[in-house]
Amino acid sequence: MNSSIQHYTPAEIRALCRNGAFSGQTAGLADGHVQANLMILPAADAFDFLLFCQRNPKPCPLVEVLEPGCFSPSCTQDGDLRSDVPGYCVYRSGVLTEQLEDVRALWRDDLVSFILGCSFSFENALMREGIALRHIEQRKNVAMYKTILACHSAGRMKGNMVVSMRPIKATDVARAVQITGRYPRVHGAPVHIGFPQRLGIADLSKPDFGDAVSLMDDELPVFWACGVTPQYVAELSKLPFCITHSPGKMLVTDLKNEEFV
Amino acid sequence: MNSSIQHYTPAEIRALCRNGAFSGQTAGLADGHVQANLMILPAADAFDFLLFCQRNPKPCPLVEVLEPGCFSPSCTQDGDLRSDVPGYCVYRSGVLTEQLEDVRALWRDDLVSFILGCSFSFENALMREGIALRHIEQRKNVAMYKTILACHSAGRMKGNMVVSMRPIKATDVARAVQITGRYPRVHGAPVHIGFPQRLGIADLSKPDFGDAVSLMDDELPVFWACGVTPQYVAELSKLPFCITHSPGKMLVTDLKNEEFV
Repeated sequence: MNSSIQHYTPAEIRALCRNGAFSGQTAGLADGHVQANLMILPAADAFDFLLFCQRNPKPCPLVEVLEPGCFSPSCTQDGDLRSDVPGYCVYRSGVLTEQLEDVRALWRDDLVSFILGCSFSFENALMREGIALRHIEQRKNVAMYKTILACHSAGRMKGNMVVSMRPIKATDVARAVQITGRYPRVHGAPVHIGFPQRLGIADLSKPDFGDAVSLMDDELPVFWACGVTPQYVAELSKLPFCITHSPGKMLVTDLKNEEFV
Repeated sequence: MNSSIQHYTPAEIRALCRNGAFSGQTAGLADGHVQANLMILPAADAFDFLLFCQRNPKPCPLVEVLEPGCFSPSCTQDGDLRSDVPGYCVYRSGVLTEQLEDVRALWRDDLVSFILGCSFSFENALMREGIALRHIEQRKNVAMYKTILACHSAGRMKGNMVVSMRPIKATDVARAVQITGRYPRVHGAPVHIGFPQRLGIADLSKPDFGDAVSLMDDELPVFWACGVTPQYVAELSKLPFCITHSPGKMLVTDLKNEEFV
Protein backbone atom coordinates (compact mmCIF):
# COMPACT_ATOMS: atom_id res chain seq x y z
CA MET A 1 0.00 0.00 0.00
CA ASN A 2 2.80 2.44 0.87
CA SER A 3 4.00 2.51 -2.74
CA SER A 4 0.66 3.81 -3.97
CA ILE A 5 -0.14 6.15 -1.07
CA GLN A 6 1.74 8.88 -2.96
CA HIS A 7 -1.27 9.16 -5.24
CA TYR A 8 -3.98 9.05 -2.58
CA THR A 9 -6.29 11.99 -2.06
CA PRO A 10 -6.27 13.83 1.29
CA ALA A 11 -9.56 12.13 2.23
CA GLU A 12 -8.10 8.69 1.43
CA ILE A 13 -4.98 9.39 3.50
CA ARG A 14 -7.11 10.56 6.44
CA ALA A 15 -9.25 7.41 6.14
CA LEU A 16 -6.12 5.23 6.28
CA CYS A 17 -5.01 7.04 9.44
CA ARG A 18 -8.48 6.70 10.96
CA ASN A 19 -8.51 2.96 10.31
CA GLY A 20 -5.04 2.47 11.74
CA ALA A 21 -3.61 1.50 8.32
CA PHE A 22 -1.11 4.39 8.07
CA SER A 23 1.02 5.97 10.77
CA GLY A 24 3.98 7.34 8.83
CA GLN A 25 5.46 10.70 7.85
CA THR A 26 3.28 12.75 5.50
CA ALA A 27 6.00 14.65 3.58
CA GLY A 28 5.36 14.36 -0.15
CA LEU A 29 1.83 12.99 0.22
CA ALA A 30 -1.30 14.55 -1.34
CA ASP A 31 0.81 16.76 -3.58
CA GLY A 32 -0.41 20.35 -3.79
CA HIS A 33 -2.54 20.14 -0.65
CA VAL A 34 -1.95 22.04 2.55
CA GLN A 35 -0.59 20.01 5.44
CA ALA A 36 -0.91 21.43 8.91
CA ASN A 37 0.36 21.44 12.47
CA LEU A 38 -2.11 20.55 15.21
CA MET A 39 -2.41 21.81 18.79
CA ILE A 40 -5.28 20.71 21.03
CA LEU A 41 -5.70 22.10 24.53
CA PRO A 42 -8.39 22.76 27.14
CA ALA A 43 -10.65 25.81 26.84
CA ALA A 44 -9.09 27.18 30.04
CA ASP A 45 -5.81 27.72 28.13
CA ALA A 46 -7.33 28.47 24.73
CA PHE A 47 -7.48 32.26 25.06
CA ASP A 48 -3.80 32.43 26.02
CA PHE A 49 -2.83 30.19 23.12
CA LEU A 50 -4.99 32.04 20.59
CA LEU A 51 -3.49 35.31 21.81
CA PHE A 52 -0.02 33.80 21.54
CA CYS A 53 -0.71 32.90 17.89
CA GLN A 54 -2.12 36.36 17.20
CA ARG A 55 1.03 37.94 18.64
CA ASN A 56 3.40 35.52 16.89
CA PRO A 57 1.96 34.95 13.43
CA LYS A 58 5.25 33.88 11.83
CA PRO A 59 5.83 30.75 13.95
CA CYS A 60 2.09 30.26 14.63
CA PRO A 61 0.11 31.02 11.44
CA LEU A 62 -3.48 30.07 12.17
CA VAL A 63 -5.37 28.16 9.49
CA GLU A 64 -8.41 27.32 11.58
CA VAL A 65 -9.52 27.30 15.21
CA LEU A 66 -12.44 25.09 16.24
CA GLU A 67 -15.09 25.72 18.86
CA PRO A 68 -14.60 23.87 22.20
CA GLY A 69 -15.39 20.17 21.81
CA CYS A 70 -15.46 20.25 17.99
CA PHE A 71 -13.19 17.90 16.07
CA SER A 72 -14.43 18.25 12.46
CA PRO A 73 -12.57 21.15 10.86
CA SER A 74 -13.89 22.87 7.76
CA CYS A 75 -10.50 22.44 6.07
CA THR A 76 -11.31 18.71 5.74
CA GLN A 77 -14.44 17.10 4.37
CA ASP A 78 -15.74 14.72 7.05
CA GLY A 79 -12.43 14.87 8.89
CA ASP A 80 -11.97 13.85 12.52
CA LEU A 81 -9.03 15.49 14.28
CA ARG A 82 -9.01 12.74 16.93
CA SER A 83 -7.98 10.02 14.48
CA ASP A 84 -7.02 11.49 11.09
CA VAL A 85 -3.41 12.40 11.88
CA PRO A 86 -0.88 9.54 11.58
CA GLY A 87 0.55 10.17 15.05
CA TYR A 88 -0.10 12.26 18.15
CA CYS A 89 1.98 13.43 21.13
CA VAL A 90 0.32 13.93 24.50
CA TYR A 91 1.92 16.32 26.98
CA ARG A 92 0.98 16.55 30.65
CA SER A 93 2.43 19.43 32.69
CA GLY A 94 4.84 20.07 29.84
CA VAL A 95 6.14 16.47 29.71
CA LEU A 96 5.62 14.13 26.74
CA THR A 97 3.76 11.22 28.30
CA GLU A 98 2.20 9.31 25.40
CA GLN A 99 2.67 8.82 21.67
CA LEU A 100 -0.57 7.54 20.14
CA GLU A 101 -2.12 6.92 16.73
CA ASP A 102 -5.60 7.85 17.91
CA VAL A 103 -6.76 10.14 20.71
CA ARG A 104 -10.50 9.44 20.72
CA ALA A 105 -10.15 7.90 24.19
CA LEU A 106 -8.68 11.15 25.52
CA TRP A 107 -11.28 13.44 23.98
CA ARG A 108 -13.09 15.94 26.21
CA ASP A 109 -15.84 18.43 25.48
CA ASP A 110 -13.67 21.34 26.57
CA LEU A 111 -10.82 20.69 24.13
CA VAL A 112 -10.08 23.41 21.57
CA SER A 113 -8.22 22.48 18.37
CA PHE A 114 -5.84 24.82 16.58
CA ILE A 115 -4.73 24.05 13.03
CA LEU A 116 -1.57 25.89 11.99
CA GLY A 117 0.20 26.30 8.66
CA CYS A 118 3.30 24.26 7.86
CA SER A 119 6.31 24.91 5.66
CA PHE A 120 5.51 22.02 3.30
CA SER A 121 3.36 24.53 1.38
CA PHE A 122 6.18 26.95 0.66
CA GLU A 123 8.68 24.14 0.05
CA ASN A 124 6.48 23.05 -2.87
CA ALA A 125 6.56 26.59 -4.20
CA LEU A 126 10.36 26.83 -3.85
CA MET A 127 10.94 23.55 -5.69
CA ARG A 128 8.46 24.47 -8.41
CA GLU A 129 10.55 27.55 -9.05
CA GLY A 130 13.75 25.56 -9.29
CA ILE A 131 15.21 26.11 -5.83
CA ALA A 132 16.56 22.79 -4.60
CA LEU A 133 15.99 21.72 -0.98
CA ARG A 134 18.71 19.43 0.31
CA HIS A 135 16.68 17.72 3.06
CA ILE A 136 14.09 16.68 0.51
CA GLU A 137 16.72 15.45 -1.98
CA GLN A 138 18.24 13.42 0.86
CA ARG A 139 14.83 12.30 2.16
CA LYS A 140 15.53 13.75 5.58
CA ASN A 141 13.38 15.76 7.98
CA VAL A 142 14.22 19.48 7.86
CA ALA A 143 16.77 20.67 10.46
CA MET A 144 15.18 22.64 13.31
CA TYR A 145 16.83 24.66 16.07
CA LYS A 146 15.80 26.34 19.30
CA THR A 147 16.81 30.02 19.21
CA ILE A 148 17.32 32.98 21.52
CA LEU A 149 14.57 34.90 19.69
CA ALA A 150 11.89 35.44 22.34
CA CYS A 151 8.31 35.10 21.17
CA HIS A 152 5.82 37.68 22.44
CA SER A 153 4.35 36.01 25.51
CA ALA A 154 0.61 35.74 26.13
CA GLY A 155 -0.72 34.88 29.56
CA ARG A 156 1.01 31.68 30.64
CA MET A 157 2.42 31.01 27.15
CA LYS A 158 6.08 32.02 27.09
CA GLY A 159 9.11 30.82 25.15
CA ASN A 160 11.56 31.22 22.31
CA MET A 161 11.08 30.65 18.62
CA VAL A 162 12.08 27.41 16.92
CA VAL A 163 13.37 27.88 13.37
CA SER A 164 13.91 25.56 10.43
CA MET A 165 17.05 25.97 8.32
CA ARG A 166 17.46 25.34 4.62
CA PRO A 167 20.78 25.86 2.82
CA ILE A 168 20.08 28.09 -0.19
CA LYS A 169 22.53 29.04 -2.94
CA ALA A 170 23.57 32.68 -2.43
CA THR A 171 22.33 33.50 -5.92
CA ASP A 172 18.86 32.14 -5.04
CA VAL A 173 18.43 33.72 -1.61
CA ALA A 174 16.62 36.89 -2.75
CA ARG A 175 14.19 34.84 -4.82
CA ALA A 176 13.61 32.39 -1.96
CA VAL A 177 12.66 35.37 0.25
CA GLN A 178 10.24 36.66 -2.35
CA ILE A 179 8.64 33.27 -2.98
CA THR A 180 8.14 32.38 0.68
CA GLY A 181 7.07 35.96 1.48
CA ARG A 182 3.99 35.28 -0.64
CA TYR A 183 2.89 32.66 1.90
CA PRO A 184 2.34 34.54 5.18
CA ARG A 185 -0.11 31.85 6.30
CA VAL A 186 2.66 29.23 6.24
CA HIS A 187 5.46 31.12 8.05
CA GLY A 188 6.17 33.60 5.22
CA ALA A 189 9.56 35.20 4.59
CA PRO A 190 12.65 34.06 6.53
CA VAL A 191 13.33 35.43 10.01
CA HIS A 192 17.11 35.42 9.48
CA ILE A 193 19.70 34.85 6.77
CA GLY A 194 23.37 34.12 7.28
CA PHE A 195 24.55 34.04 10.90
CA PRO A 196 23.37 31.13 13.07
CA GLN A 197 25.17 32.64 16.08
CA ARG A 198 22.83 35.63 15.96
CA LEU A 199 20.00 33.21 16.72
CA GLY A 200 21.97 31.51 19.47
CA ILE A 201 22.67 28.42 17.33
CA ALA A 202 26.21 27.22 18.16
CA ASP A 203 26.49 24.33 15.72
CA LEU A 204 24.37 23.80 12.61
CA SER A 205 25.38 20.13 12.55
CA LYS A 206 23.45 19.55 15.80
CA PRO A 207 19.80 20.45 15.22
CA ASP A 208 17.41 20.23 18.17
CA PHE A 209 14.78 18.52 16.00
CA GLY A 210 14.98 16.80 12.60
CA ASP A 211 18.14 15.93 10.70
CA ALA A 212 21.35 17.85 9.98
CA VAL A 213 22.23 18.65 6.37
CA SER A 214 25.54 19.98 5.07
CA LEU A 215 26.06 23.59 3.99
CA MET A 216 28.06 24.12 0.78
CA ASP A 217 30.54 26.96 0.14
CA ASP A 218 28.18 28.79 -2.20
CA GLU A 219 25.21 28.57 0.16
CA LEU A 220 23.82 30.65 3.00
CA PRO A 221 21.87 29.16 5.87
CA VAL A 222 18.34 30.58 5.67
CA PHE A 223 16.08 30.38 8.71
CA TRP A 224 12.29 30.34 8.77
CA ALA A 225 9.94 30.46 11.77
CA CYS A 226 8.91 26.88 12.49
CA GLY A 227 5.62 25.25 13.42
CA VAL A 228 7.35 23.29 16.19
CA THR A 229 7.42 26.57 18.15
CA PRO A 230 3.95 26.16 19.70
CA GLN A 231 4.82 22.64 20.86
CA TYR A 232 8.10 23.83 22.38
CA VAL A 233 6.36 26.78 24.06
CA ALA A 234 3.62 24.50 25.42
CA GLU A 235 6.38 22.35 26.97
CA LEU A 236 8.25 25.33 28.42
CA SER A 237 5.01 26.84 29.74
CA LYS A 238 4.19 23.52 31.44
CA LEU A 239 0.62 23.52 30.13
CA PRO A 240 -1.40 21.04 32.20
CA PHE A 241 -2.54 19.12 29.11
CA CYS A 242 -2.18 19.30 25.37
CA ILE A 243 -2.20 17.05 22.34
CA THR A 244 -0.16 17.79 19.23
CA HIS A 245 0.58 15.99 15.98
CA SER A 246 3.78 13.98 16.03
CA PRO A 247 6.59 15.89 14.22
CA GLY A 248 6.46 15.17 10.49
CA LYS A 249 3.09 13.41 10.80
CA MET A 250 0.85 16.26 9.74
CA LEU A 251 -2.86 16.77 9.23
CA VAL A 252 -3.48 16.49 5.48
CA THR A 253 -6.22 19.00 4.59
CA ASP A 254 -8.36 19.46 1.50
CA LEU A 255 -7.07 23.01 1.02
CA LYS A 256 -4.84 23.69 -1.98
CA ASN A 257 -1.48 25.38 -1.52
CA GLU A 258 -2.46 27.96 -4.14
CA GLU A 259 -5.34 29.12 -1.93
CA PHE A 260 -2.72 30.15 0.59
CA VAL A 261 -0.96 32.74 -1.55
CA MET B 1 -7.76 75.05 22.09
CA ASN B 2 -9.67 73.21 19.37
CA SER B 3 -8.04 75.31 16.66
CA SER B 4 -4.57 74.14 17.66
CA ILE B 5 -5.43 70.52 18.52
CA GLN B 6 -4.82 69.66 14.84
CA HIS B 7 -1.11 69.93 15.57
CA TYR B 8 -1.05 68.04 18.85
CA THR B 9 0.89 64.80 19.16
CA PRO B 10 -0.97 61.55 19.94
CA ALA B 11 0.28 61.71 23.56
CA GLU B 12 -1.00 65.29 23.93
CA ILE B 13 -4.42 64.36 22.52
CA ARG B 14 -4.66 61.38 24.89
CA ALA B 15 -3.69 63.64 27.82
CA LEU B 16 -6.49 66.08 26.90
CA CYS B 17 -8.97 63.20 26.85
CA ARG B 18 -7.68 61.89 30.17
CA ASN B 19 -8.10 65.31 31.79
CA GLY B 20 -11.60 65.76 30.41
CA ALA B 21 -10.51 68.65 28.17
CA PHE B 22 -11.38 66.99 24.86
CA SER B 23 -14.33 64.76 23.99
CA GLY B 24 -14.74 65.33 20.24
CA GLN B 25 -14.31 63.40 16.98
CA THR B 26 -10.72 62.45 16.19
CA ALA B 27 -10.85 62.48 12.36
CA GLY B 28 -7.95 64.52 11.00
CA LEU B 29 -6.07 64.66 14.31
CA ALA B 30 -2.47 63.47 14.82
CA ASP B 31 -1.90 63.30 11.08
CA GLY B 32 -0.06 60.17 9.97
CA HIS B 33 -0.76 58.23 13.15
CA VAL B 34 -2.90 55.13 13.42
CA GLN B 35 -6.29 55.62 15.04
CA ALA B 36 -8.09 52.55 16.32
CA ASN B 37 -11.38 50.98 17.30
CA LEU B 38 -11.72 49.72 20.86
CA MET B 39 -13.65 46.76 22.28
CA ILE B 40 -13.42 45.84 25.95
CA LEU B 41 -15.20 42.78 27.33
CA PRO B 42 -14.97 40.28 30.18
CA ALA B 43 -12.47 37.41 29.98
CA ALA B 44 -15.42 34.98 29.86
CA ASP B 45 -16.26 36.28 26.38
CA ALA B 46 -12.74 37.08 25.26
CA PHE B 47 -11.97 33.76 23.55
CA ASP B 48 -15.13 33.98 21.46
CA PHE B 49 -14.36 37.54 20.47
CA LEU B 50 -10.72 36.84 19.67
CA LEU B 51 -11.81 33.86 17.57
CA PHE B 52 -14.40 36.04 15.84
CA CYS B 53 -11.64 38.51 14.91
CA GLN B 54 -9.39 35.71 13.71
CA ARG B 55 -12.19 34.39 11.49
CA ASN B 56 -13.21 37.84 10.20
CA PRO B 57 -9.98 39.77 9.69
CA LYS B 58 -11.44 42.25 7.18
CA PRO B 59 -13.99 43.85 9.52
CA CYS B 60 -11.98 43.02 12.67
CA PRO B 61 -8.25 43.59 11.98
CA LEU B 62 -6.46 43.16 15.29
CA VAL B 63 -3.78 45.68 16.18
CA GLU B 64 -3.29 44.58 19.77
CA VAL B 65 -4.98 42.47 22.42
CA LEU B 66 -4.17 43.08 26.09
CA GLU B 67 -3.99 40.58 28.93
CA PRO B 68 -7.03 40.50 31.26
CA GLY B 69 -7.08 43.57 33.52
CA CYS B 70 -4.41 45.46 31.55
CA PHE B 71 -5.23 48.92 30.23
CA SER B 72 -1.84 50.21 29.01
CA PRO B 73 -1.36 49.09 25.42
CA SER B 74 2.06 48.98 23.83
CA CYS B 75 0.76 51.00 20.85
CA THR B 76 0.67 54.05 23.16
CA GLN B 77 3.40 55.38 25.42
CA ASP B 78 1.93 55.64 28.94
CA GLY B 79 -1.59 55.32 27.56
CA ASP B 80 -4.63 54.38 29.66
CA LEU B 81 -7.48 52.80 27.71
CA ARG B 82 -9.94 53.68 30.48
CA SER B 83 -9.63 57.43 29.93
CA ASP B 84 -7.65 58.22 26.76
CA VAL B 85 -10.48 57.88 24.24
CA PRO B 86 -12.73 60.96 23.83
CA GLY B 87 -15.91 58.97 24.32
CA TYR B 88 -17.08 55.48 25.30
CA CYS B 89 -20.27 53.46 24.82
CA VAL B 90 -21.28 50.90 27.45
CA TYR B 91 -23.51 48.03 26.41
CA ARG B 92 -25.30 45.73 28.83
CA SER B 93 -27.03 42.62 27.41
CA GLY B 94 -26.63 44.14 23.94
CA VAL B 95 -28.28 47.45 24.87
CA LEU B 96 -26.45 50.80 24.89
CA THR B 97 -26.90 51.97 28.47
CA GLU B 98 -24.29 54.68 29.04
CA GLN B 99 -22.18 57.12 27.03
CA LEU B 100 -19.20 58.22 29.08
CA GLU B 101 -15.96 60.15 28.71
CA ASP B 102 -14.12 58.00 31.22
CA VAL B 103 -14.68 54.36 32.27
CA ARG B 104 -12.26 54.09 35.18
CA ALA B 105 -15.22 53.63 37.55
CA LEU B 106 -16.38 50.59 35.54
CA TRP B 107 -12.99 48.91 35.33
CA ARG B 108 -12.66 45.28 36.41
CA ASP B 109 -9.68 42.98 36.63
CA ASP B 110 -11.24 40.52 34.20
CA LEU B 111 -11.71 42.98 31.33
CA VAL B 112 -9.85 42.24 28.11
CA SER B 113 -9.17 45.10 25.66
CA PHE B 114 -9.05 44.64 21.90
CA ILE B 115 -7.60 47.39 19.70
CA LEU B 116 -8.66 47.14 16.05
CA GLY B 117 -7.53 48.95 12.90
CA CYS B 118 -9.63 51.75 11.43
CA SER B 119 -10.07 53.05 7.91
CA PHE B 120 -8.61 56.47 8.74
CA SER B 121 -5.20 54.93 7.90
CA PHE B 122 -6.12 53.96 4.35
CA GLU B 123 -8.08 57.17 3.80
CA ASN B 124 -4.84 59.07 4.34
CA ALA B 125 -3.16 56.88 1.77
CA LEU B 126 -5.97 57.38 -0.77
CA MET B 127 -5.90 61.15 -0.42
CA ARG B 128 -2.11 61.23 -0.60
CA GLU B 129 -2.40 59.52 -3.97
CA GLY B 130 -4.95 62.05 -5.22
CA ILE B 131 -8.18 60.12 -4.70
CA ALA B 132 -10.74 62.53 -3.28
CA LEU B 133 -13.05 61.39 -0.46
CA ARG B 134 -16.36 63.22 -0.44
CA HIS B 135 -17.22 62.73 3.25
CA ILE B 136 -13.90 64.30 4.24
CA GLU B 137 -14.33 67.22 1.80
CA GLN B 138 -17.80 67.75 3.29
CA ARG B 139 -16.58 67.22 6.89
CA LYS B 140 -19.06 64.40 7.40
CA ASN B 141 -18.73 61.02 9.06
CA VAL B 142 -18.34 58.21 6.49
CA ALA B 143 -21.60 56.45 5.48
CA MET B 144 -21.97 52.98 7.03
CA TYR B 145 -24.52 50.27 6.28
CA LYS B 146 -25.61 46.98 7.78
CA THR B 147 -25.39 44.24 5.15
CA ILE B 148 -26.62 40.72 4.45
CA LEU B 149 -23.01 39.46 4.39
CA ALA B 150 -22.82 37.03 7.30
CA CYS B 151 -19.62 37.08 9.32
CA HIS B 152 -18.17 33.74 10.33
CA SER B 153 -19.61 33.18 13.78
CA ALA B 154 -17.50 32.22 16.80
CA GLY B 155 -19.11 30.84 19.93
CA ARG B 156 -21.82 33.30 20.96
CA MET B 157 -20.56 35.99 18.55
CA LYS B 158 -22.82 36.04 15.49
CA GLY B 159 -23.89 38.74 13.05
CA ASN B 160 -23.55 40.43 9.69
CA MET B 161 -20.84 42.70 8.41
CA VAL B 162 -21.14 46.48 8.53
CA VAL B 163 -19.51 48.25 5.56
CA SER B 164 -18.44 51.80 4.88
CA MET B 165 -19.11 53.30 1.44
CA ARG B 166 -17.02 55.83 -0.42
CA PRO B 167 -17.99 57.12 -3.89
CA ILE B 168 -14.92 56.69 -6.13
CA LYS B 169 -14.54 57.92 -9.72
CA ALA B 170 -14.76 54.89 -12.03
CA THR B 171 -11.32 55.75 -13.44
CA ASP B 172 -9.83 55.59 -9.92
CA VAL B 173 -11.48 52.41 -8.66
CA ALA B 174 -8.72 50.00 -9.67
CA ARG B 175 -6.10 52.20 -8.02
CA ALA B 176 -8.23 52.57 -4.87
CA VAL B 177 -8.36 48.76 -4.63
CA GLN B 178 -4.60 48.50 -5.01
CA ILE B 179 -3.86 51.23 -2.48
CA THR B 180 -6.21 49.94 0.23
CA GLY B 181 -5.17 46.35 -0.50
CA ARG B 182 -1.74 47.30 0.84
CA TYR B 183 -3.32 47.86 4.28
CA PRO B 184 -4.73 44.50 5.35
CA ARG B 185 -4.41 45.54 9.01
CA VAL B 186 -6.92 48.36 8.48
CA HIS B 187 -9.65 46.51 6.52
CA GLY B 188 -7.65 46.14 3.28
CA ALA B 189 -9.19 45.92 -0.18
CA PRO B 190 -12.93 46.57 -0.70
CA VAL B 191 -15.44 43.77 -0.07
CA HIS B 192 -17.70 44.93 -2.91
CA ILE B 193 -17.80 47.41 -5.78
CA GLY B 194 -20.88 48.61 -7.63
CA PHE B 195 -24.18 47.06 -6.50
CA PRO B 196 -25.51 48.05 -3.06
CA GLN B 197 -28.46 45.65 -3.52
CA ARG B 198 -26.05 42.72 -3.56
CA LEU B 199 -25.16 43.65 0.02
CA GLY B 200 -28.80 44.08 1.00
CA ILE B 201 -28.56 47.89 1.00
CA ALA B 202 -31.87 49.25 -0.36
CA ASP B 203 -31.08 52.96 -0.31
CA LEU B 204 -27.63 54.54 -0.20
CA SER B 205 -29.13 57.81 1.00
CA LYS B 206 -30.14 56.15 4.28
CA PRO B 207 -27.00 54.85 5.99
CA ASP B 208 -27.38 52.95 9.27
CA PHE B 209 -24.49 54.89 10.81
CA GLY B 210 -22.72 58.11 9.81
CA ASP B 211 -23.84 60.56 7.14
CA ALA B 212 -25.11 60.07 3.59
CA VAL B 213 -23.09 61.50 0.70
CA SER B 214 -24.20 61.87 -2.91
CA LEU B 215 -22.98 59.57 -5.70
CA MET B 216 -22.07 61.28 -8.99
CA ASP B 217 -22.69 59.85 -12.47
CA ASP B 218 -19.03 59.03 -13.05
CA GLU B 219 -18.61 57.29 -9.68
CA LEU B 220 -19.08 53.78 -8.36
CA PRO B 221 -20.04 53.06 -4.75
CA VAL B 222 -17.11 51.19 -3.20
CA PHE B 223 -17.66 49.24 0.01
CA TRP B 224 -15.08 48.37 2.64
CA ALA B 225 -15.45 46.16 5.73
CA CYS B 226 -16.05 48.49 8.67
CA GLY B 227 -14.79 48.58 12.24
CA VAL B 228 -18.33 49.14 13.52
CA THR B 229 -18.93 45.45 12.77
CA PRO B 230 -17.68 44.19 16.16
CA GLN B 231 -19.90 46.69 18.00
CA TYR B 232 -22.93 45.66 15.93
CA VAL B 233 -22.18 41.97 16.45
CA ALA B 234 -21.74 42.51 20.20
CA GLU B 235 -25.20 44.11 20.25
CA LEU B 236 -26.80 41.33 18.20
CA SER B 237 -25.09 38.66 20.29
CA LYS B 238 -26.44 40.31 23.45
CA LEU B 239 -23.08 40.18 25.20
CA PRO B 240 -23.67 40.68 28.94
CA PHE B 241 -21.22 43.60 29.10
CA CYS B 242 -18.88 45.47 26.82
CA ILE B 243 -17.33 48.89 26.43
CA THR B 244 -16.45 50.37 23.04
CA HIS B 245 -15.19 53.72 21.78
CA SER B 246 -17.95 56.08 20.67
CA PRO B 247 -18.22 56.08 16.83
CA GLY B 248 -15.76 58.59 15.35
CA LYS B 249 -14.04 59.10 18.72
CA MET B 250 -11.10 56.79 18.24
CA LEU B 251 -8.04 55.77 20.22
CA VAL B 252 -5.13 57.81 18.84
CA THR B 253 -2.03 55.59 18.95
CA ASP B 254 1.67 56.32 18.56
CA LEU B 255 1.94 53.95 15.60
CA LYS B 256 2.57 55.47 12.18
CA ASN B 257 0.31 54.62 9.26
CA GLU B 258 3.37 53.62 7.22
CA GLU B 259 4.17 50.87 9.72
CA PHE B 260 0.86 49.30 8.74
CA VAL B 261 1.70 48.69 5.09
